[in-house]
Amino acid sequence: MVNSDKQPPIRRRLDPRPLAQTGHCRLEVLRRLAGRPIVGHADLDRDEVIELCRLAAHLESTEVASHHPLDGLVVITAFFEPSTRTRLSFESAALRLDGKILSVPDGKVTGIAKGESLADIGEMFNSYGDLLVMRHPVTEATEEIVEHLAIPMINAGNGSGEHPTQALVDWYTLLKWRPELASPTPSEDARIDLAVLGTPGSMRAVKSFTFAALHFRAAIRSLTVVSEMADPFGPELAAAVEASGIDVRVVNDLDPPLQDFDVIYQNAIALLGDAYKELNDGCRLSADREFKPGAVILHPLARREELDTSLDRSEHNLYFAQAAGAVFVRQALMVSVLDRLGRLPDSFSERPR
Amino acid sequence: MVNSDKQPPIRRRLDPRPLAQTGHCRLEVLRRLAGRPIVGHADLDRDEVIELCRLAAHLESTEVASHHPLDGLVVITAFFEPSTRTRLSFESAALRLDGKILSVPDGKVTGIAKGESLADIGEMFNSYGDLLVMRHPVTEATEEIVEHLAIPMINAGNGSGEHPTQALVDWYTLLKWRPELASPTPSEDARIDLAVLGTPGSMRAVKSFTFAALHFRAAIRSLTVVSEMADPFGPELAAAVEASGIDVRVVNDLDPPLQDFDVIYQNAIALLGDAYKELNDGCRLSADREFKPGAVILHPLARREELDTSLDRSEHNLYFAQAAGAVFVRQALMVSVLDRLGRLPDSFSERPR
Amino acid sequence: MVNSDKQPPIRRRLDPRPLAQTGHCRLEVLRRLAGRPIVGHADLDRDEVIELCRLAAHLESTEVASHHPLDGLVVITAFFEPSTRTRLSFESAALRLDGKILSVPDGKVTGIAKGESLADIGEMFNSYGDLLVMRHPVTEATEEIVEHLAIPMINAGNGSGEHPTQALVDWYTLLKWRPELASPTPSEDARIDLAVLGTPGSMRAVKSFTFAALHFRAAIRSLTVVSEMADPFGPELAAAVEASGIDVRVVNDLDPPLQDFDVIYQNAIALLGDAYKELNDGCRLSADREFKPGAVILHPLARREELDTSLDRSEHNLYFAQAAGAVFVRQALMVSVLDRLGRLPDSFSERPR
Repeated sequence: MVNSDKQPPIRRRLDPRPLAQTGHCRLEVLRRLAGRPIVGHADLDRDEVIELCRLAAHLESTEVASHHPLDGLVVITAFFEPSTRTRLSFESAALRLDGKILSVPDGKVTGIAKGESLADIGEMFNSYGDLLVMRHPVTEATEEIVEHLAIPMINAGNGSGEHPTQALVDWYTLLKWRPELASPTPSEDARIDLAVLGTPGSMRAVKSFTFAALHFRAAIRSLTVVSEMADPFGPELAAAVEASGIDVRVVNDLDPPLQDFDVIYQNAIALLGDAYKELNDGCRLSADREFKPGAVILHPLARREELDTSLDRSEHNLYFAQAAGAVFVRQALMVSVLDRLGRLPDSFSERPR
Repeated sequence: MVNSDKQPPIRRRLDPRPLAQTGHCRLEVLRRLAGRPIVGHADLDRDEVIELCRLAAHLESTEVASHHPLDGLVVITAFFEPSTRTRLSFESAALRLDGKILSVPDGKVTGIAKGESLADIGEMFNSYGDLLVMRHPVTEATEEIVEHLAIPMINAGNGSGEHPTQALVDWYTLLKWRPELASPTPSEDARIDLAVLGTPGSMRAVKSFTFAALHFRAAIRSLTVVSEMADPFGPELAAAVEASGIDVRVVNDLDPPLQDFDVIYQNAIALLGDAYKELNDGCRLSADREFKPGAVILHPLARREELDTSLDRSEHNLYFAQAAGAVFVRQALMVSVLDRLGRLPDSFSERPR
Repeated sequence: MVNSDKQPPIRRRLDPRPLAQTGHCRLEVLRRLAGRPIVGHADLDRDEVIELCRLAAHLESTEVASHHPLDGLVVITAFFEPSTRTRLSFESAALRLDGKILSVPDGKVTGIAKGESLADIGEMFNSYGDLLVMRHPVTEATEEIVEHLAIPMINAGNGSGEHPTQALVDWYTLLKWRPELASPTPSEDARIDLAVLGTPGSMRAVKSFTFAALHFRAAIRSLTVVSEMADPFGPELAAAVEASGIDVRVVNDLDPPLQDFDVIYQNAIALLGDAYKELNDGCRLSADREFKPGAVILHPLARREELDTSLDRSEHNLYFAQAAGAVFVRQALMVSVLDRLGRLPDSFSERPR
């Protein structure tokens, strides 16, 4: 509104149509997700991740509200660890499909603080909703509640565990940016050198992003993890990365020049304390630094100083479009898990390849 | 999902059809509730309680969401004393009928904390909603706000007062379990020996349950109240119990054997401090104890140690089904109070006896 | 319900039909508001204020819920300074038109407390909603976030800045009470002597009310501001008042007799500390005082001792009707800003003058 004419515009959206046009939705793949809990990386295989992103691209490029795909269904958003950003993203996604929301924005201010077990809370949710979206500060909380759920559940972040829908958001953004990444045989031009600034083993969003990256190994020329930790992956992810055959480098310091990378994934470093900044100011990104032309930055946000606002109006800013796309990929997952694919327009599955 | 095959399944639902089939809904009885405040036991007579339960059984066994019975109406859920369980139950009930929710999940974190009077708050609610569902820590709060309301109100728990919809939930559960309890002349086989573990005079849910029990006096062979209080009923309920002619025993201790009882109603004993446990470990229920075959346990939840999880997979567990049924009996009450019985399917009132 | 027969009834509503019948809605005026931020007095001219009030009168006198004017749209209510009353008013207004709500009832208990910038929060809101309604304790917050918004925004109160929708509520109430106030040439009988008890320069609701009053200068015979401040208006409003040519008096004390005034606008004096009460008990209003016959009192509520409940059942009480009308004028603004005037019934714009 009040933006100065001198500044380039902020890119708030990535055109979803190129990804949508890579082919119709293979609904038979997505139907497998009906009723299933989505807790971590093992709950979605490569096909499912790609089809969710494709469905998201259709949802982002088509008016579907008038089809009321989630009509009559109640989504419980239970945030035992508060997060406005993730909660609003899920709630917006469900509301725009005409789902209803039961919101528990802060476990601490509610009766749940009385000390009820997760088992009993799970039974309660069975009675009151059709889908649980839960964030919890305790890593084990997701597995514990899933044992008692008769309704599906989507993990919106559990302690130092995973954040699988953030990984979907990240890869949806990358597939919109360059749809060929989804190809099993991408051209050499389409392949990417990928930098991860963060510690996958201890940061749930970074972990889920890296696990998901393994589905796209054919498109990843190299993966560089910048972390001060000796073993940044943790045992499970380390084994998976090794098995993937991806060319991996782990460095202490962002000394390989930034210009090497097509995609830079950064997380809120401050969450780990000041360790990063003390070790390495080089992990801070700003418009003063030299990027490869066309390189893009992903960041799940919120951010602190690690990602300077001078980048907001640059071509490297993919993080605002990432936030905007979050709604659609979460819609894709909710429609699948809630078994409402049949309510979508016919055009979604009939589009010719 | 992950339930072991070795364990019996948890009973999460009671079939509502036998109760629904005891007869069509007598809508003319329920129409009397339109616009009325439901504060305590005196606001619902026997006929109204039974018809609300019957309507709930129809709602639980029929798809009604597509009729949008509460379309365009706004329900305010104002919880000046936070309670996730009760709040979500009401909100889920209204949302599934296409009502809208204005949620005040915690009076303390809002502008109401500025010290506005209940009179002014009531005037505000008149402007913004069509129905008020209120929980308040002060017993007198319900009467005070009702004086200033032009819209109907449902008491969701007031101090040490009443909790009338919990009593509806409890008796709806029992009528689904054994529909003949609603008969004015039940067979000897259908009659029950009932134990109440709790102090009706000082615990609002226990009080409302016991008041409602008097509507079913013909079906109650005996009522045993286990409480350490000299006069567990309080004056008003004591008089009503005496007038009812029910065979009542008040005991200090659960020394009459558990096997005497068909129905055991238990409440969260810890809410009274540690008095119970010190006096009497016998009030704790667990699968180790001997119950009458077929006996059932009701508990409004949340629970602490008084109700052991070892009972969850037993035939005695009616408390999870009780929570699941809560949505439907609250729907029945809201549809009646909001005068939307005319939006229900014709089949509800035309079903032949 | 329990109102004593002896007391006169409380006036809870002002008939909106006389205002509606002053003419059809000039939708072409309201269409100018589509997509625009409404931050302060400069964002609405006289025509726009009058047409919003006329549209509100139509909305208050016509059933429009079945037209679902806000179908599929998401309104974010972000209250970084909690306010139940204003938040519920906006949420009720949107829900009754079938809009959806993303509610942030308290910025402090959410992830926003992590210290995200308003710029980033604005970008987030772009992704998740179609309209932002924001209250913030910092005056500059509205301008700051508007710079980053791609969606329209309605200021629901910013620090010591403005509260433009409260001014709409106030003047909607006065126009319903006396539609001729909107005439550019009101009869001498229709003109009012207006008293403002409060300090426009430092109290946002009083400031917005007074700015809006200047649109109705032809109908204001005199304006008396009662404030202990030397310059109660602040520089911008002082200049505007002077330019308006209205006959203005500023007094320290309510010594001009109350009987002089047709309209008395009062605000919650306690918010300024105890200064008022120490200086001047005369600013307290109660039924003991002598008012001009037919005089009316406006108060945005909540109130403290400055407005005695003895006035509630008097003819002077316009403040409850004011609260009731708030929903409709906020609906009028949201429908205009969200460009959904086309979804309203044809009768709104076709009604003959």
